[in-house]
Amino acid sequence: MLLECGVIRTTPSAPLPERLRQIHEGLGDVIERHRPQIMAVEDIFYGKNVRTTVLLGHTRGAVLLAAALRDLPVADYSPAEVKNSIVGTGRATKAQVQFMVKKLLRLRAVPSPSDAADGVAAALCHINTARFGDLARRAVGTP
Amino acid sequence: MLLECGVIRTTPSAPLPERLRQIHEGLGDVIERHRPQIMAVEDIFYGKNVRTTVLLGHTRGAVLLAAALRDLPVADYSPAEVKNSIVGTGRATKAQVQFMVKKLLRLRAVPSPSDAADGVAAALCHINTARFGDLARRAVGTP
Repeated sequence: MLLECGVIRTTPSAPLPERLRQIHEGLGDVIERHRPQIMAVEDIFYGKNVRTTVLLGHTRGAVLLAAALRDLPVADYSPAEVKNSIVGTGRATKAQVQFMVKKLLRLRAVPSPSDAADGVAAALCHINTARFGDLARRAVGTP
Repeated sequence: MLLECGVIRTTPSAPLPERLRQIHEGLGDVIERHRPQIMAVEDIFYGKNVRTTVLLGHTRGAVLLAAALRDLPVADYSPAEVKNSIVGTGRATKAQVQFMVKKLLRLRAVPSPSDAADGVAAALCHINTARFGDLARRAVGTP
């Protein structure tokens, strides 16, 4: 069951440290609210623009830290792993991911914006991967 | 006067979120100990290895967040600005930076490792820049 999904928006005019704080605290609020057992995150997509990618690195640092400071374990998956797990191909479009997230969770509408659907997709990818992992472990007889 | 300099080392075998926590908390300790008015940081050097640069982005995110969570303003300078301010050329070597940091602060030995000297250099760069900024403002008569 999907309890909540969304995006954390920051003040575009604010300096980077302040925007990182907004993300860190926004995520902290979500963690406090739902007390999850794990955080699933997507690895960075290495785009053509190195500066954008590095900025994303800063952001991801703030995200991982929000988990670490609460002793919340983190599982990370590549963008292709997430897409493959949800749509069946690592090259799926954003619209396909949104469509499958809606279908898999029997939602009335696609999660919007597409970044919110990406977040849910990462969580679903973890559930799938962990489930198959359990099956594999059961199959080979490990507890 | 130089009160303290050093590097924060993390456990190489620990997962990334835990290492980010070690940096964040190590820096938090230093901030609590000295109660600085500002944090000077170097911009990221965009090296050839994009993955290393992005990893540095994560780390820098944890550093900036340590400042933001304590309402500590951050001033950032490019590696070339820092070197130029200390050595007089943006292409100075690490050894030259260490030598000038020792000389400018009248230390008995060069700060070691060189990363610690780089940290002190960023602080000195900020002091220089802020001082010249004051002079410039005074020169044009703004309060």
